[in-house]
Amino acid sequence: MSYQLMNRMFFEGQIPAMITFFNPNHVAHAGQLEMYRGELVPCFEVPSRADRVLAELEHRQLGSIQPASLIDGSLRSVLEKVHSSRYLQFLERAWGEWIKLAPENSERDALPSVWSVRGMRSDRLPSNFAARMGLFSFDMGTPLTAGTWQAAIGGAGCALSAANRLLAGERGTFALTRPPGHHAGADFFGGYCFINNAAVAAQVLLDGGMARVAILDIDYHHGNGTQAIFYRRSDVMFASIHGDPSSEYPFFLGYADETGEGDGVGYNHNLPLPKGSDFDVWGQALTEGLDSIFGFKPDGLVVSLGVDTFIDDPISGFRFLEEDYLAVGRQIANIGLPTVFVMEGGYALEAIGRNVANVLQGFDTGKSTV
Amino acid sequence: MSYQLMNRMFFEGQIPAMITFFNPNHVAHAGQLEMYRGELVPCFEVPSRADRVLAELEHRQLGSIQPASLIDGSLRSVLEKVHSSRYLQFLERAWGEWIKLAPENSERDALPSVWSVRGMRSDRLPSNFAARMGLFSFDMGTPLTAGTWQAAIGGAGCALSAANRLLAGERGTFALTRPPGHHAGADFFGGYCFINNAAVAAQVLLDGGMARVAILDIDYHHGNGTQAIFYRRSDVMFASIHGDPSSEYPFFLGYADETGEGDGVGYNHNLPLPKGSDFDVWGQALTEGLDSIFGFKPDGLVVSLGVDTFIDDPISGFRFLEEDYLAVGRQIANIGLPTVFVMEGGYALEAIGRNVANVLQGFDTGKSTV
Repeated sequence: MSYQLMNRMFFEGQIPAMITFFNPNHVAHAGQLEMYRGELVPCFEVPSRADRVLAELEHRQLGSIQPASLIDGSLRSVLEKVHSSRYLQFLERAWGEWIKLAPENSERDALPSVWSVRGMRSDRLPSNFAARMGLFSFDMGTPLTAGTWQAAIGGAGCALSAANRLLAGERGTFALTRPPGHHAGADFFGGYCFINNAAVAAQVLLDGGMARVAILDIDYHHGNGTQAIFYRRSDVMFASIHGDPSSEYPFFLGYADETGEGDGVGYNHNLPLPKGSDFDVWGQALTEGLDSIFGFKPDGLVVSLGVDTFIDDPISGFRFLEEDYLAVGRQIANIGLPTVFVMEGGYALEAIGRNVANVLQGFDTGKSTV
Repeated sequence: MSYQLMNRMFFEGQIPAMITFFNPNHVAHAGQLEMYRGELVPCFEVPSRADRVLAELEHRQLGSIQPASLIDGSLRSVLEKVHSSRYLQFLERAWGEWIKLAPENSERDALPSVWSVRGMRSDRLPSNFAARMGLFSFDMGTPLTAGTWQAAIGGAGCALSAANRLLAGERGTFALTRPPGHHAGADFFGGYCFINNAAVAAQVLLDGGMARVAILDIDYHHGNGTQAIFYRRSDVMFASIHGDPSSEYPFFLGYADETGEGDGVGYNHNLPLPKGSDFDVWGQALTEGLDSIFGFKPDGLVVSLGVDTFIDDPISGFRFLEEDYLAVGRQIANIGLPTVFVMEGGYALEAIGRNVANVLQGFDTGKSTV
């Protein structure tokens, strides 16, 4: 089915249309340099990513675009459930501390330079800013800028709004924001991520009355932050299809033998695939992931939607074609769950809009028992 | 006493002279850039550090300068006791892997960019080079260069030789090398350090028949690597005087409440002092540290000798004057233990030679029951 035909069906009321919550504050986060393969290079995670997706959704008239909730008490409350208080406090105040250290710091982003690894402490919070920045991070690819907090919290607001609309009876919603979120853990940023928007959406669904929520992460890179946040919980299943962490970022989580701990045993399902995998191989993993989600009997689904699985993505290694994303959306729809899509990665700028829109359009036109 | 007078006493045989083992391969390690306060800046840890110390020792004719052992079976054996095999293998092969990734890499040092922090795995060894580099490190200040392994292993050879000479009956020896070692743990590099030379020296003393060995770390920065290596052992006491880790590098270890674990309980003694402390305050901490070492009844002492406690050090915060280092050496001598000095930090290039020589000369002229 062409998207022209599908759009006509929307307008005729045959298909419930996706509602997109867009974060206009995303532009406030525009990092300059990231460390990539031993060098400082211009950031791959740029503002035009979100703008291109928005433009494509508008071009296709794919559902409605709505403003997200601003930060308020309910957002604060859910943030405190997925991130630690001291981490949130650090993020909110970090830029102010950074420029207070030296006036010239306002000209450049803050990057960490020392980390707390095996055998080192994280219980004591150093007074030193660089030390706290390192304590709350795990890589050098994630510059913190003047507008990072504003952009990140705007994204959390999108996730909250998208989840709330689902609770109000919608079949599918989309949180269109950046920076992405799935690499952010309870108390660390990294992988371009600061606030875990997918975790926020899942928590909102639970707080709103759902007993169980599944998160399906289809970004090329394993959602180590999301996994870590829910690893000991039985109310959230995390399933992820991603590049083999032995060779692909973020490396230190994402193996198939990570199945949860404590109450969470059995509710974490990693499906790593070799770099270079195409959509045929990936589709089988998706079937397996959706099967285990189906068996979990969740009331709702959150999809961490990365399109860096695209063949031309500059920092990833799967081989999706544009039309494959329509099939992704349809397959997700087939599981018949109310679904929040949350924007994660995707760095092939020319195609990012079409690839994201294809997933949403595939979902809109897919079967659903909702 | 002037050093002219002391030198005359040496030549007259009244004082047993320090024997220095110098690492000529130290020059093979010359990093270009380190991350410091959010920017890549020229490395502080430069080859002229060791050359200036050597020149001052020769100028004062302070004992003899001898060649160190080359790497052989006995050095391999002791290295495996203080570092993990997979870490040593990584270090030895790292540069070869780095330049194989891309020909242009031979023009620049290797720096890590992603780390394994809380909740992430270190049991799986990624195939990806950047991932392994991050797994085996904790900061961005420690570039790995073409000659790093050669220089580091040469330093370990110095430490081995200096310890062996002590076992042969010498009162005091000095391993003059760089890069330094005390931030290197069993399986991580950082803080300009790759192989923990002080740990090598201590292990050699134990393997040579000493029942207990103490390590006194007087570098401005806490010896987090040395502490971590021996934290669960009762045969090595670690005592350290250093800048308060809440504000001073390496931040994530070095607090007074770290007293050892398991068999090691009671054998770790941290004496953090506020930035800005002068020698009077420091001297009281030294007395306390030496008292606890004395109570441990060790057969030998290893001193991690950093002179970045100097008032003009560019990256540190104590306020030692040049003559204070003579007193440091004398106080250490007073405990009456056979002592290996191992060169650690000190970045005030103009004064580094005099400051190190003053410690050794103070030791040579100090009281000793050996």
